[in-house]
Amino acid sequence: MANSNSNSHYSKLSQHFQKISHFEHLSALGDWDQATMMPSGGSEARGAAMAELAGHIHELKTADFIEETLNLAADEVLNKEQAANLREMQYQYFQANIVPASLVQSKTQLAYQCEHAWRVQRKNNDWQGFKPNLEALITLVREEAAIRAQAQNITPYDALLSKFEPDMTTRRLEKVFGSLKSWLPQMITQVQANQRNDLKVEIPSFSAKKQEALGRDVMSFLGFDFTQGRLDTSSHPFCGGVPGDIRLTTRFDETDFTQGLMGVIHETGHARYEQGLPKQWRGQPVGGHRSMAIHESQSLFCEMQLGRGAGFLSQLEPLISQHLGAELDSQALTALYTRVESGFIRVDADEVTYPCHILLRFEAEKGLVDGSLAVADLPDFWAENMQNLLGVDTRGNYQNGCMQDIHWAVGELGYFPSYTLGAMYAAQFRYAIEKSLGSVDALVAQGKIQVIFDWLEQNIWSKGCLLSTDALVKQATGEPLNPEYFKRHLEQRYLK
Amino acid sequence: MANSNSNSHYSKLSQHFQKISHFEHLSALGDWDQATMMPSGGSEARGAAMAELAGHIHELKTADFIEETLNLAADEVLNKEQAANLREMQYQYFQANIVPASLVQSKTQLAYQCEHAWRVQRKNNDWQGFKPNLEALITLVREEAAIRAQAQNITPYDALLSKFEPDMTTRRLEKVFGSLKSWLPQMITQVQANQRNDLKVEIPSFSAKKQEALGRDVMSFLGFDFTQGRLDTSSHPFCGGVPGDIRLTTRFDETDFTQGLMGVIHETGHARYEQGLPKQWRGQPVGGHRSMAIHESQSLFCEMQLGRGAGFLSQLEPLISQHLGAELDSQALTALYTRVESGFIRVDADEVTYPCHILLRFEAEKGLVDGSLAVADLPDFWAENMQNLLGVDTRGNYQNGCMQDIHWAVGELGYFPSYTLGAMYAAQFRYAIEKSLGSVDALVAQGKIQVIFDWLEQNIWSKGCLLSTDALVKQATGEPLNPEYFKRHLEQRYLK
Repeated sequence: MANSNSNSHYSKLSQHFQKISHFEHLSALGDWDQATMMPSGGSEARGAAMAELAGHIHELKTADFIEETLNLAADEVLNKEQAANLREMQYQYFQANIVPASLVQSKTQLAYQCEHAWRVQRKNNDWQGFKPNLEALITLVREEAAIRAQAQNITPYDALLSKFEPDMTTRRLEKVFGSLKSWLPQMITQVQANQRNDLKVEIPSFSAKKQEALGRDVMSFLGFDFTQGRLDTSSHPFCGGVPGDIRLTTRFDETDFTQGLMGVIHETGHARYEQGLPKQWRGQPVGGHRSMAIHESQSLFCEMQLGRGAGFLSQLEPLISQHLGAELDSQALTALYTRVESGFIRVDADEVTYPCHILLRFEAEKGLVDGSLAVADLPDFWAENMQNLLGVDTRGNYQNGCMQDIHWAVGELGYFPSYTLGAMYAAQFRYAIEKSLGSVDALVAQGKIQVIFDWLEQNIWSKGCLLSTDALVKQATGEPLNPEYFKRHLEQRYLK
Repeated sequence: MANSNSNSHYSKLSQHFQKISHFEHLSALGDWDQATMMPSGGSEARGAAMAELAGHIHELKTADFIEETLNLAADEVLNKEQAANLREMQYQYFQANIVPASLVQSKTQLAYQCEHAWRVQRKNNDWQGFKPNLEALITLVREEAAIRAQAQNITPYDALLSKFEPDMTTRRLEKVFGSLKSWLPQMITQVQANQRNDLKVEIPSFSAKKQEALGRDVMSFLGFDFTQGRLDTSSHPFCGGVPGDIRLTTRFDETDFTQGLMGVIHETGHARYEQGLPKQWRGQPVGGHRSMAIHESQSLFCEMQLGRGAGFLSQLEPLISQHLGAELDSQALTALYTRVESGFIRVDADEVTYPCHILLRFEAEKGLVDGSLAVADLPDFWAENMQNLLGVDTRGNYQNGCMQDIHWAVGELGYFPSYTLGAMYAAQFRYAIEKSLGSVDALVAQGKIQVIFDWLEQNIWSKGCLLSTDALVKQATGEPLNPEYFKRHLEQRYLK
């Protein structure tokens, strides 16, 4: 067996994946610029350049030599980290090669058209216009899922899940989400019944400029290093860029600063994860984020576990008063940020009702993929489930019903569970932190927020993809995913 | 002979060059972002990504199939524009392939080191530190020039010129610049003697924000379309991006708004040229700018012919008063923008003294390339020529003498003449415009600036590289380069 010197097969792969990461850097830059800076006149040339780049990256990811070299490298002497890197290379190569290029291309094209039309159709509540596009796209998604399933000997929906959550299965999700479904709707009713309406707070208006200055200070409070990234605005907030240069965005509504501010806190969670990924593995597959649920766990840890807690809000009080000059004490902030209200829109939902939106989408996606739910029946399915889960009537309201998310309009099925898995992991991480360091709220209130980030860096961020998701969570918390911590968190915050 | 259908050799080349332009789009974006947006933490990853991209573009430009395909395409039936495109492809291929990759690489690396050290050495007036680096770099430049010269059967300095000015020769430049040298120093003396010192104006301070708002309005007045580009700030102003999305930058000095404003006007000239290049040829070699002198002619047309004229400054008066709130009438603005003062620094020079800086550099570069001027003798050469041309004493003042420009520190010789050629072309274009449309000053004062841009678009911008520089200038003005128009322009503005 050869060892992993610079002429080894492993080393050849490592160089190749580093090269891919350089082109992905340019792709991230192009995406960010398009969303934040690019004038409309640039879209044609940019579209062509980004398509060319995507094609080039795909060529590199599916290069002929990789398969054989992966096999040869598997026989080389590798240390633990290198072995993990090789495993992630294999996974990425497999994911990139599993679907025929022709299918990828048809799906990309159809998704582009469907999304483009959806932007107008959603505004017009035009379900009849959207339906045939979605049907055509779902047909391709099923085809993709079948191919992925056969190659991995798993079910089609598992195969879609695995694009975002390696090792997660439908069966396991059904167990986790089934438990959630058994107690969450009742809890929502109870929380809303107990909720003190006299604490409802009027939100004053503030200029975007003031909100942005506040946002920057809150980012610094959350340990964001502005020599390693930027904050800008875009119509849909996101966290992009590369680990040394994270580009996060938010949007500011002058009549409601609370959304933009929480958006900044959420995206800062994503950003700190990316910035904290192992520096020595930058550009290598093992140096990337573990899964989308783990990514969401970091943003939701910031937003939900820290951001809506009393300790954090008491720290926010002077910053808000400094930048917005308004008299919003931490009691008012707490009332604003922990209000529970059943509504139509997933992205506007509070922490307690949010998982219901995911439960519904999970069931719908499974049905769309296995064929038990026809696209034509989606609105009825939606209305029935929204009624059962949240007591909300969505009949005829397609734009705020099954047409509200971009995910299906671009053919992305299997992603939604990551959001609620992320919320569960975040609660579980908090529990582990409190076990070793004491109350998170107290730590933040005492100005010791850094020790919390140190824990996350040591246990989550710096691990990149060295471990599987289960192993990562177990090493950090002593057990794999346990949704009980999420339940306990909601009970403590909303029912005590 | 085959015709140019989609399977033709010509068409294959056309697709290949389009592909190159997509990667060049990403390169332009990366450069712009680095200068305007990127936080310091991004430099390592960006440097690696940009080097990867440059390597990829070089590979594409020197792809094996190109040479033979160019020959085969030459036998195909092409229309006039396609034939011009093929000629430009041949030129670009030749320029990319002429120098061995190993030499390109050593020069790039040495230039990077030399520039990096120069940034500190210049600040410290450290000629002894800079000298050996420049010597090593000039040795490589001579090697490059010799290879380029031999391949084209021209002189080494001609070969360097041809990178920026196809068809321009040292002999022709010597004639043009020789004439300039015969009358310019005397004219400068005369202008300065006549200059009314009582018109010297104190410049008030204005915030960068106000200057930027003024700059944007002036850009709009110059016909810049903000759906096709942006204005940002960077430490060195430039015009980048791609034709549908031009990214221009300037810098604002709060104690002197005149420089930043003229910078905006200058870069807008570059921008309008790029935006006006033939749309149907975007991404093809024939769709690019004709030469660096023609590019400079457009920025200098805006800055010198329009920008410092009485008609333009009278239009500027209300905009300045609106944004800066200051009482600067067009007489004061004219005094500010037409003051002539001999100084050390090229980039700070006025329109009249500027060409002296170029005359000196042209002579120096020729000597450095043919070996008649040693790097060690550069400071003495500089001192003597600055004394003769501008009556300025630069002895011992290296940082404001031969160390002031970045060009040589990165091994770029042969570029400087383009600046003064540009000024000459701009004067010649103005003359042609006035012959057919009447006084430029009067047109601008009457709010008819658009007809001037229409002329430029029709005669210069929309021609891209369809014609050679000489043919372009002759078609637009009736004759090839004639420096008499530049002399006449200076006489009219400064001696009447």
